Amino acid sequence: MTNTQVTLVQIDNYGPWTVTPEPRREADLQTMQSRLYADISQFVGNRGGYTFFTRFDNMIAVTNGLDREDHALLQESVGNRYPVTLSLGIATGTNPVQALADATARLQEAGSAQDKHRRECLEGRVIDEPYRADDDIQIAHFDVINATGNYTDELNAFDTFIEIEQGYAELMRHMRYAHDSLSFFVGGDNVIVVCPDLEAADYEEALAHVEEAVDVEMQVGVGRGKSAHEAGFAAKHALETCRADGTRVELEWKTA
Amino acid sequence: MTNTQVTLVQIDNYGPWTVTPEPRREADLQTMQSRLYADISQFVGNRGGYTFFTRFDNMIAVTNGLDREDHALLQESVGNRYPVTLSLGIATGTNPVQALADATARLQEAGSAQDKHRRECLEGRVIDEPYRADDDIQIAHFDVINATGNYTDELNAFDTFIEIEQGYAELMRHMRYAHDSLSFFVGGDNVIVVCPDLEAADYEEALAHVEEAVDVEMQVGVGRGKSAHEAGFAAKHALETCRADGTRVELEWKTA
Amino acid sequence: MTNTQVTLVQIDNYGPWTVTPEPRREADLQTMQSRLYADISQFVGNRGGYTFFTRFDNMIAVTNGLDREDHALLQESVGNRYPVTLSLGIATGTNPVQALADATARLQEAGSAQDKHRRECLEGRVIDEPYRADDDIQIAHFDVINATGNYTDELNAFDTFIEIEQGYAELMRHMRYAHDSLSFFVGGDNVIVVCPDLEAADYEEALAHVEEAVDVEMQVGVGRGKSAHEAGFAAKHALETCRADGTRVELEWKTA
Amino acid sequence: MTNTQVTLVQIDNYGPWTVTPEPRREADLQTMQSRLYADISQFVGNRGGYTFFTRFDNMIAVTNGLDREDHALLQESVGNRYPVTLSLGIATGTNPVQALADATARLQEAGSAQDKHRRECLEGRVIDEPYRADDDIQIAHFDVINATGNYTDELNAFDTFIEIEQGYAELMRHMRYAHDSLSFFVGGDNVIVVCPDLEAADYEEALAHVEEAVDVEMQVGVGRGKSAHEAGFAAKHALETCRADGTRVELEWKTA
Repeated sequence: MTNTQVTLVQIDNYGPWTVTPEPRREADLQTMQSRLYADISQFVGNRGGYTFFTRFDNMIAVTNGLDREDHALLQESVGNRYPVTLSLGIATGTNPVQALADATARLQEAGSAQDKHRRECLEGRVIDEPYRADDDIQIAHFDVINATGNYTDELNAFDTFIEIEQGYAELMRHMRYAHDSLSFFVGGDNVIVVCPDLEAADYEEALAHVEEAVDVEMQVGVGRGKSAHEAGFAAKHALETCRADGTRVELEWKTA
Repeated sequence: MTNTQVTLVQIDNYGPWTVTPEPRREADLQTMQSRLYADISQFVGNRGGYTFFTRFDNMIAVTNGLDREDHALLQESVGNRYPVTLSLGIATGTNPVQALADATARLQEAGSAQDKHRRECLEGRVIDEPYRADDDIQIAHFDVINATGNYTDELNAFDTFIEIEQGYAELMRHMRYAHDSLSFFVGGDNVIVVCPDLEAADYEEALAHVEEAVDVEMQVGVGRGKSAHEAGFAAKHALETCRADGTRVELEWKTA
Repeated sequence: MTNTQVTLVQIDNYGPWTVTPEPRREADLQTMQSRLYADISQFVGNRGGYTFFTRFDNMIAVTNGLDREDHALLQESVGNRYPVTLSLGIATGTNPVQALADATARLQEAGSAQDKHRRECLEGRVIDEPYRADDDIQIAHFDVINATGNYTDELNAFDTFIEIEQGYAELMRHMRYAHDSLSFFVGGDNVIVVCPDLEAADYEEALAHVEEAVDVEMQVGVGRGKSAHEAGFAAKHALETCRADGTRVELEWKTA
Repeated sequence: MTNTQVTLVQIDNYGPWTVTPEPRREADLQTMQSRLYADISQFVGNRGGYTFFTRFDNMIAVTNGLDREDHALLQESVGNRYPVTLSLGIATGTNPVQALADATARLQEAGSAQDKHRRECLEGRVIDEPYRADDDIQIAHFDVINATGNYTDELNAFDTFIEIEQGYAELMRHMRYAHDSLSFFVGGDNVIVVCPDLEAADYEEALAHVEEAVDVEMQVGVGRGKSAHEAGFAAKHALETCRADGTRVELEWKTA
């Protein structure tokens, strides 16, 4: 059984800020957002977690291994260095989608994302250290088969992007509604998926679905671990096996 | 008539680098990619251009106002500060998709994105200063109507993301194939579109198409200018008018 | 008794890299150095430590609370994101100067700072968690009395800088040779000093010495703690007391 | 004749901000300051200028080639991305110390560095493009002879730092009072000096003075150019000649 700790990271009242007193330069907003994301990714990542940029104003992180003090420190540190502040909602569970729904609900109860009086909320609970297990997290790392040869070196850069984006859009919906999983595009032709307790057959089904729906061929490595990094690292190694052996689904964990 | 200068920014041999000698920590890759993007956005942006993160290993920029020396300086500066290098393809034209296709072709002719001997290529031509015009660029800035009230404060964060992502995926395909435009998600519920010479009716058609196809209601502000910043800034102001007046399409430029 | 854990952070073979194959743009070197420092400051700082930029190619950190795995992770993360790599020497002791000397010796034994075969060394030992104590670190935070009124708003910016620099140079030498302490300029008119077990009289002596030698009047807040952050935070509060009450030396810790 | 354009960059009301409502974490301040410096260095640097971190809350830049719009854009961009704002004073002249004094005076007249109502001032004038000349800037790049062999690989890291710091402190004072020059430590064992129209004999005198006063042996490469980058790049090449040939002073410019 997985036990995923999910943190919703929301920039407080961000939309209004971007146009107050008048619209801010887009390049500055892009720079600020992506550096803020990079900092959070680094903070969470060097404690074993993963952060996904998602919509940038709402980021989603897998934070097993981070306690409430860590979350509070992240808020404080961002508040000291950026012109915006963060609210954080945390929840845990065997089903990542449900955990995220709970984390979201906690922030929604605290106030609207555009409520200017809701600032630096920290809501929810973490998995206490004694309750953490070696297989709390399951991560699947998908990529597009021979994306460089089939797309990047052949199509124009936008059409390649459309192909990959289409594969991602289909995969994200399917994994969410059929498999209670959270899928995130992470650059290139890579999608990282935070999963509950899925099996090889589930991934085979998902690959077949995407191929049929949008004609994009993908492969996937899957890993388990105590943290997102551990699970994700095993998934990367499994994906290397796909690439080397031409297989479509590889799972890398000690069998139960 | 628009005359868009497009630059394709490609990290050299990036895929192989991310797994050599073995897979690198995902959080570090995410941090490095997004900071690299932020730096390019800043460099291009403070010369009046726009950069879109796209796939991160392939970024697309609108670079009217930057000459070849500027591009070369960007390459040199990134090469001095990052563990990776950039190749750049530049092209111009009335049709942004065609311009990007040309820019892509120039890099593809120079070598594969995963050719380790293709490093720091700089290919293509810019619009010389005397040939630049005040209406070279047309930018449309879309957002989702009442995204915070309808989605962010109501659905869980991932389902909100799916809705926005779906609207984006449909819009990007439609604008590319029906209107020769390049659409980029820029965070929150915002999509920036680099367009040829489109009219209000074209945007109305696109909004109707997206609403019918995926049931996402959007609005759009459109601007023209000599640079991406000028056009995009006018588009932002036009979008503020939509928000204030409840209109769906606003164009902000002096009519010809 | 203090027990300071000191880490010497050395960029591997940096001097030669800056001029290979020919001198690199100074602005890029400055950007890269200061961002690398910022990242290390953030990594160490959000684990309770302090990092000082010192010479940039050689940085000095107080790392109580960071174990060898943390140090290794810092090396790995920097190696994944920068064009340069780090070697780290760690040592501990009641005398910060001696600890730094030991940390330095470990790196020197591993090879020259300009030996291109010495890369990513990690040498030395940390204080194991059970041996850490609440008063392991003593930090003194000095500033110049009314620097803004006496200097910044009166002299030209360089002459102000000379005054502050002179105060710092005298303080750093005196604290090192008379009090076995490591002093670091941290911006503005602030100097942070990592001390052994000093008393109020020692600080009074130091202030008097600096005033006599170079005619710069300073004040100092001193704190103790389990980590650099705890001690430094107490020192900052003590310095606020100096500012409020017009005193010259304030110590903030529970007396033994 | 040189004609140096100097910009004083001052963070508005920074001291009070760092302790409001209570002292902020030192590691965050260090991170924020050094990244802000890095961004300014990059902005100014990719327009041919040099920025020196100096005291971090007051930075000094050589900005030949940047006009008032560039300065205003820097202010706007920083204001959009940081929790602090910048005021800028600009002045020009044949004597860099006098230019800096004028730039400082303009900001001082606008208000105190700790006046909370003085925000984002932009004062002073630049050299208009037609008046710029190929030899407007003279830069000298000093380093310590065999610093790695004599110090870094021999002494502990702090004693090495004291030696280099002492050399710098002596050089900065001497160059300022004897030669109207602004000297900045830029990391490692390097000092960059912004000079008026000095000759080889002046540098020989300065080297002799430093050696006699504090027993630190330095060498220096000197360059001229239209911008800080051009002059500094020539200086770096000249310094490479010193290193290769064992000479102490090298000037690299086309003789008048």
